[in-house]
Amino acid sequence: MRRVYLDNSATTPIAPEVLEAMMPYLTDKFGNASSIHFFGQQAKAAVDKARHQVSSLINAKPNEIVFTSGGTESNNLAIRGLVQANEKYGKHIITCQIEHPSVKEVCIDLERKGYKVTYLPVYEDGIVRIEDLKSAIREETVLISIMTANNEIGTLQPVEEIGNFVTELRKTGKKIWFHTDAVQAVGKVAIDVEQIKCDLLSISAHKLYAPKGIGALYVRSGVRLQRQNIGGRQERERRGGTENVAGIVAFGKACEIAQIDLDSQASYLKNLRDRFEHEVAEKIENIVFNGNREKRLPHISNISFRYVEGEGLLINLDMQGIAVSTGSACSSGSLEPSPVIRALGRDDELARSAIRFSFGKFNTEADVDYLLEVLPKAVRQMREFSPILERSRL
Amino acid sequence: MRRVYLDNSATTPIAPEVLEAMMPYLTDKFGNASSIHFFGQQAKAAVDKARHQVSSLINAKPNEIVFTSGGTESNNLAIRGLVQANEKYGKHIITCQIEHPSVKEVCIDLERKGYKVTYLPVYEDGIVRIEDLKSAIREETVLISIMTANNEIGTLQPVEEIGNFVTELRKTGKKIWFHTDAVQAVGKVAIDVEQIKCDLLSISAHKLYAPKGIGALYVRSGVRLQRQNIGGRQERERRGGTENVAGIVAFGKACEIAQIDLDSQASYLKNLRDRFEHEVAEKIENIVFNGNREKRLPHISNISFRYVEGEGLLINLDMQGIAVSTGSACSSGSLEPSPVIRALGRDDELARSAIRFSFGKFNTEADVDYLLEVLPKAVRQMREFSPILERSRL
Repeated sequence: MRRVYLDNSATTPIAPEVLEAMMPYLTDKFGNASSIHFFGQQAKAAVDKARHQVSSLINAKPNEIVFTSGGTESNNLAIRGLVQANEKYGKHIITCQIEHPSVKEVCIDLERKGYKVTYLPVYEDGIVRIEDLKSAIREETVLISIMTANNEIGTLQPVEEIGNFVTELRKTGKKIWFHTDAVQAVGKVAIDVEQIKCDLLSISAHKLYAPKGIGALYVRSGVRLQRQNIGGRQERERRGGTENVAGIVAFGKACEIAQIDLDSQASYLKNLRDRFEHEVAEKIENIVFNGNREKRLPHISNISFRYVEGEGLLINLDMQGIAVSTGSACSSGSLEPSPVIRALGRDDELARSAIRFSFGKFNTEADVDYLLEVLPKAVRQMREFSPILERSRL
Repeated sequence: MRRVYLDNSATTPIAPEVLEAMMPYLTDKFGNASSIHFFGQQAKAAVDKARHQVSSLINAKPNEIVFTSGGTESNNLAIRGLVQANEKYGKHIITCQIEHPSVKEVCIDLERKGYKVTYLPVYEDGIVRIEDLKSAIREETVLISIMTANNEIGTLQPVEEIGNFVTELRKTGKKIWFHTDAVQAVGKVAIDVEQIKCDLLSISAHKLYAPKGIGALYVRSGVRLQRQNIGGRQERERRGGTENVAGIVAFGKACEIAQIDLDSQASYLKNLRDRFEHEVAEKIENIVFNGNREKRLPHISNISFRYVEGEGLLINLDMQGIAVSTGSACSSGSLEPSPVIRALGRDDELARSAIRFSFGKFNTEADVDYLLEVLPKAVRQMREFSPILERSRL
């Protein structure tokens, strides 16, 4: 069967050049980067090189990069690490309603521990308003955590405005820091920590054509974090544990490629996605695009198919070789409709009928052709047997 | 130059069969194990298989395995997770003086947060006494964390006696749990969680001929842990974050091989190690073996070379292609003499002259020959220029 993978926001295939770069570290160059001898120094040099590659992609300094086991750990370290190290300045956090579970759940957990959290609304377009953020600031606010781009609908948040605002606030003497989860955005749009003026920024390698199990947290020089994974002296004592050398090397290579290809990739993905959206709107009626269609990542399309149950459509498409998702892979197994789509003000029915199509660099025009051939039939088929449609006719 | 790697306790090369098993998950089978579609289910099936392989090696049930990013995370999750979830029963922990930094540093951190910690002595042989443990128990003791085997000297702790003691204590109604860091022991000696009667047991893949960046925590059914890496619903909500599928598959395969080869490997390593120790004692005078020489892992030899500075000897050997270590790789960069060797009652000078030789399945008799050729000359050379020896003659 023809297989078309359109779930690149869940994870991406490893690029051949990335695999090639990591192979020596899965074979001959197997040293522990903390060892003093030849094998260790060989590994350490590779980790150092990767640290340069990762930092360069986001315009940071190499020693501002802390390697972690992935985006979830980066978000946990950023939020818990920052508030614990700065407890004396206050216990209020501002975030938004459509953050990834690894931000949202950490905030909910902190609420149980006496922190106050404000979850900013995102309105129908899926975007936070700077005015809402400004009025949410309190004496005790120590952290703002707003994602660079959403993982389900791709909307870009006004992170530069937030960074400017935080910078101004600090000039008044306020102790406040800004974290942004850029897991979906890095490598898809230009990310510059000096432009965003963030203090902490999370990245994941496996969204970038590198393997799973590796990520990074950018920590601006001088920002104090409480360690979470405590042990050895790795990562300048900010994250214990033997370095995942092969994963780090792969991550570095993927960042190097992403930096070179950024513009061409962005327009390639946007073309595929826009053609799909244009034609799907002509072929299928009663569909609703979710999220602002301008201010968003180039590779994500999120559509609600009225009268259709999203998970059923996903399975129907899967049986024809097309892989998509109903929401974040990290939330799969949940019986609730996507909280991201709900936050746009959609009702449960529309939220349950949402499908995310996420394109990647290995997708082709032929993939879009196949999708456009299969999808309209699948939707028609499902609507024919739809109990929701039946009910709506009564 | 001939290269002889004798630092297998720091990390091991990946076995060819392990690499072969993981390759499909670095190429075609790249799905996110949480995705519902074909690619996701393919990854999920692989993770499930590995969970069986890992659990089988330690005689656990598959759903008692939580995959983590490595031994350090496993130890952090075990200790912090257990005490946080069971705070109401007390805030006292018992551990020992020679635990790995990822146990010891977590305990020190908990002391700052109001916990009390007893660090049991290990005496000259590097072994905890069960009587000391018994008299350290308090009303508020909730956790005993004693490693199965030490990473620098290889001594085996009386974990079965501890498990029996904890089981007896529980019969009196006491709420108390037992964690053991088995990172160095798993795959080297038989580990059976039913025999040890532990509640939590830490494993790391890269000590077992699998890649870095992956590990597991065994959590006995019914034991409550507070999550540390919070996010998605992965690992039955005990550890968030996209599964490191390729790493998990490799880890599973390595455990399968370790289980099959356990006895033959143990005797192979013991033969290499014992021949080395026998001959080195004949060739070099003024050496001291560290730790009990019977109750220990088969692959580790730790020797203090009187009048020699350990790090100097390490570098001398490295220049001749032999890789060894002075202590745990996780502590390298520390200027202090090894706290493990110090805990045996050795003075600073003897602690600073300690070298760990750790053998692995890819070492050969020829490697031992080369070591026995190079080491005596290196020690002689260093002693000739030793300021310590000069001082001791005065």
